[in-house]
Amino acid sequence: MYSTKCKKTGDFHLSDPQFQKLIQSFSSLPGIGKKSATRIGFHILRMDPTSFQSWLDNIEEAKTKLRFCNECGGLTEEPVCSICLSDRRENGILCVVEQPEDIFFIENTKEYSGKYHVLNGAISPLDGIGPEQLRIKQLMNRLDSGAINEVLIATNPTLEGDATASYLSTVIKPMEIKITRIAHGITIGGTLEYSDQYTLGKAIKSRLTL
Amino acid sequence: MYSTKCKKTGDFHLSDPQFQKLIQSFSSLPGIGKKSATRIGFHILRMDPTSFQSWLDNIEEAKTKLRFCNECGGLTEEPVCSICLSDRRENGILCVVEQPEDIFFIENTKEYSGKYHVLNGAISPLDGIGPEQLRIKQLMNRLDSGAINEVLIATNPTLEGDATASYLSTVIKPMEIKITRIAHGITIGGTLEYSDQYTLGKAIKSRLTL
Repeated sequence: MYSTKCKKTGDFHLSDPQFQKLIQSFSSLPGIGKKSATRIGFHILRMDPTSFQSWLDNIEEAKTKLRFCNECGGLTEEPVCSICLSDRRENGILCVVEQPEDIFFIENTKEYSGKYHVLNGAISPLDGIGPEQLRIKQLMNRLDSGAINEVLIATNPTLEGDATASYLSTVIKPMEIKITRIAHGITIGGTLEYSDQYTLGKAIKSRLTL
Repeated sequence: MYSTKCKKTGDFHLSDPQFQKLIQSFSSLPGIGKKSATRIGFHILRMDPTSFQSWLDNIEEAKTKLRFCNECGGLTEEPVCSICLSDRRENGILCVVEQPEDIFFIENTKEYSGKYHVLNGAISPLDGIGPEQLRIKQLMNRLDSGAINEVLIATNPTLEGDATASYLSTVIKPMEIKITRIAHGITIGGTLEYSDQYTLGKAIKSRLTL
């Protein structure tokens, strides 16, 4: 759309290389298409130089200071994160998630007070991601320490997430550690009508006695 | 969502100030909410340092090099843009738009080969934007030169865009310059059913003899 040479005038106004690079920078971010990137690009060009510089500095500073925890793989500014270091959290339970951001979502529920372990992905043979590409070795090392008595698997309810969960379950089982999986079912506030057949099926299979 | 202190553990993990600043940087951009900003934030943190640096450099370079044309107000790397300088475009017709990006959209149609004038907004008394806040004085100066014989008003079909169009029409009329407005009507490929009543009404009023 923005790289056409105008047939009438021969102008290359639409494909200004600097503007293209600006658009490209934003459309390379997840969830941003070309149209949004163009809007953001113009927003950046309209910013006064001081606000722009502090905007840029904030991003650069965060990128420099933030890192992933050596222990759990979650977000932190220190070598080991505050959750891993906390003595007010249950040490015996480890929640396994695919991505560092999943820790945010689970923390937000205020229903979990154990520790975490981030895999950095899920098993996906088609994308060439096997157990070796994930932080599974680090997980096994933590389990070997003997302090953990429950592993709560909170990978996503997708093909990859389920494959990862069943792989983990197979390798952890011999260690005699309790293995649990977060429940899948009808969304709170949702209706049966709008729930897909697989979720509804799963909710029936996992029914609870009241 | 990301600034709650966990009641159980007292951890401030969710409100890491660096991460908050990163999220804030992205959610301040148009069309990006907190959830998308979080996704983008993690994407940035996962980028390798070299790609991150070149990402940052591209944005900074574009911001430094790009500016708005002294003549028309459109996007350019030079003091005056290539459209204004082009001798292959009609000099007698000036298309008036609200924003520099509107030039992109009109150029893309390949139906216009005149020059442009960007107002940098539209008249909106509620937001304190009157004719003085827009590039209307510059427009009048260009019209005063006598080279222009048609002004095509392409402001948006909104309350503000229409108010601007009618204001421009009032001030330009005494200059004996032809004033036109882009047509509003049914979207190409659309159906009457899905066209709103105002657009359909306008399409009937502006009907053309075949």
